[in-house]
Amino acid sequence: MFREMLENVREKCPLIHNITNYVTVNDCANVLLACGGSPIMADDADEAEEITSLCGGLNINIGTLNQRTIPAMHLAGKKSNELGHPVVLDPVGAGASKLRTETARKLMEEVRFTVIRGNISEIKVLALGAGGARGVDADVADAVTKETLPQAVAFAKAFARETGAVIAITGAIDIVANGEKAYCIYNGHPMMSSITGTGCQLSAVTAAYVTANSEKPLEAAAAAVCLMGVCGEKAYARLTEQDGNATYRNYIIDAIFRLTGEELEQAAKFDVF
Amino acid sequence: MFREMLENVREKCPLIHNITNYVTVNDCANVLLACGGSPIMADDADEAEEITSLCGGLNINIGTLNQRTIPAMHLAGKKSNELGHPVVLDPVGAGASKLRTETARKLMEEVRFTVIRGNISEIKVLALGAGGARGVDADVADAVTKETLPQAVAFAKAFARETGAVIAITGAIDIVANGEKAYCIYNGHPMMSSITGTGCQLSAVTAAYVTANSEKPLEAAAAAVCLMGVCGEKAYARLTEQDGNATYRNYIIDAIFRLTGEELEQAAKFDVF
Amino acid sequence: MFREMLENVREKCPLIHNITNYVTVNDCANVLLACGGSPIMADDADEAEEITSLCGGLNINIGTLNQRTIPAMHLAGKKSNELGHPVVLDPVGAGASKLRTETARKLMEEVRFTVIRGNISEIKVLALGAGGARGVDADVADAVTKETLPQAVAFAKAFARETGAVIAITGAIDIVANGEKAYCIYNGHPMMSSITGTGCQLSAVTAAYVTANSEKPLEAAAAAVCLMGVCGEKAYARLTEQDGNATYRNYIIDAIFRLTGEELEQAAKFDVF
Repeated sequence: MFREMLENVREKCPLIHNITNYVTVNDCANVLLACGGSPIMADDADEAEEITSLCGGLNINIGTLNQRTIPAMHLAGKKSNELGHPVVLDPVGAGASKLRTETARKLMEEVRFTVIRGNISEIKVLALGAGGARGVDADVADAVTKETLPQAVAFAKAFARETGAVIAITGAIDIVANGEKAYCIYNGHPMMSSITGTGCQLSAVTAAYVTANSEKPLEAAAAAVCLMGVCGEKAYARLTEQDGNATYRNYIIDAIFRLTGEELEQAAKFDVF
Repeated sequence: MFREMLENVREKCPLIHNITNYVTVNDCANVLLACGGSPIMADDADEAEEITSLCGGLNINIGTLNQRTIPAMHLAGKKSNELGHPVVLDPVGAGASKLRTETARKLMEEVRFTVIRGNISEIKVLALGAGGARGVDADVADAVTKETLPQAVAFAKAFARETGAVIAITGAIDIVANGEKAYCIYNGHPMMSSITGTGCQLSAVTAAYVTANSEKPLEAAAAAVCLMGVCGEKAYARLTEQDGNATYRNYIIDAIFRLTGEELEQAAKFDVF
Repeated sequence: MFREMLENVREKCPLIHNITNYVTVNDCANVLLACGGSPIMADDADEAEEITSLCGGLNINIGTLNQRTIPAMHLAGKKSNELGHPVVLDPVGAGASKLRTETARKLMEEVRFTVIRGNISEIKVLALGAGGARGVDADVADAVTKETLPQAVAFAKAFARETGAVIAITGAIDIVANGEKAYCIYNGHPMMSSITGTGCQLSAVTAAYVTANSEKPLEAAAAAVCLMGVCGEKAYARLTEQDGNATYRNYIIDAIFRLTGEELEQAAKFDVF
């Protein structure tokens, strides 16, 4: 099934509008090209709706958040909802400042997200704010391990029911869940955390996957998460003793560029709960 | 002749002021260093004129355009005109939004550009707006192929006469034209379109080339376009089966760093019409 | 001693708040991860104090300076001072425009810096402005060579006394001085100047070093400067005939990722005056 997802991206070449941070924006553009999509970056309120209308999907990332670009996030998000385009939210740093937490929450109030992807602490912050009073128990451990997995899966499903979005919590074990079903994904390599922006890249790729596979957002998001993990493994296998995180960064994008649907299918390691 | 152009850049090390997008800005800086120039990035209206005055040339790129930096583009452009500095316009995404199209047009009204470099659809948008009523026939095909080449050359020359700028239309076949003469350049590799920002990089390099060869802007721009294509070919030849667009990006900049005037002269493939 | 500095960074993993330019920001993030630190980039006044409060140290870099982010620099700088966090200033382009020169000076008036790192011309501009009338003789040569070294050391020490900061002047020979003592460091490779942002990267690494070694800011800054030079040498040794500045950029970050305290200690070349 992941094979088909990957091939749909390569065939349809979804054009993704990105409103994202300036730290990892170049990697996001190159990784979108690598996976078979096409990127447009545009963050001014005066063009956000027009640009989004040209695209198939939207990726909103709140890293290096600033007042200048928040209006564009709202405008593009609402317009994408109107047009039925998939929208991904990457709440980078939610919880680290009121600005980021409040912005993520307001976006969630005004925009219907297809996928929300973050680490466990970011997702917990959103769940506590948006749904704490409404039944989502965000009192899960701060790391997803084999021991805490059942609890984390229940949390992800509950938050997915609350929001109507697919929830992707990435870490040593990744969870991708809608209200009924969760993929727990074991691919990846610890050295991926030595590169800035693998999370941002994954959100961009996820936007391409859910856009090219719009009828199956859960499986599409799970495929994107698997893809990133598998390519983290493949890239790690290429490293020599002199290579560090800079070369690793390049090799991951290279691996995404080269990965076939068959390789993804074979290398994917996951359970479904 | 291209040899001499390249050697002039390496000898004079032109300092180029870039007002450019945040997606590919790092690549633009590194590619300017690779080709023998030197970059300064500055986009605040409060310093645009001073910075441009320190430089030899100016490169204006409207990717990730936003209201904050548009005034700097006008100020730096006018100041460069006053000082007789070459100015390059890269109308990234002209046609994709009113903001970009209108900004590009206003810049063309207020600033005299030495070179305007874009893909065929961007250049057509500018031609329709600025010159549609004044005789430029922008009704050319949306891809430059062997079949559509004569028509595209005529279009480029007409638009060059209209604007007084050298027009560089890049794609599978590149056209670099002034009102009388056009270089049609066949270098490059299709995989270059899998990297974000090869166009932006080319515009930055073009600014260095026309600055170091200010008496021959047509030939200088053609040399820059050739250089990028030749280096795309050389870099492609280095790729292994595991390499993808991230490594390719690095190898293209590496190739520009290493290219000699003699290599450029020998590898250049073009016709003159 | 440098060995211990490096190991402290790897052990403590200092979290560094960066308010920096959009040209080299990705490299700054990756180099912080490579050296053992952790980066946060945030430049909006609405979150600057909160973000800095979560961190161990602050790195302010005025490249691509603009009016939007200057308030965040002041707020984060003052908050860091309050909290006793080390703060690094990288006055990129001081002297190139009034905006940059004045901003750097105002920051120096309102924020107590632990380290100020720049090239000789940037540091001279700051010294002339801030201290010209108060006894710092900025009339030193524009390049630090063996001949001009004694004079440059005296200048660095005097400016360190004026400001209370460790002064790091980087170039062919690097000087890292407080009021009494100066390290003159001979590591590095000329090709490092063919990469955009090695200075910015060094400032980010310096912030990590002085944060993880807060009782010895002079030695910590000297260790960071040595580290960058040593890794420039190691990376250069890996280059093939086809590699240029793009691969060199990656290899320097890779080398920083791999460098051990023992290697740093052994490869460091410096005098103390």
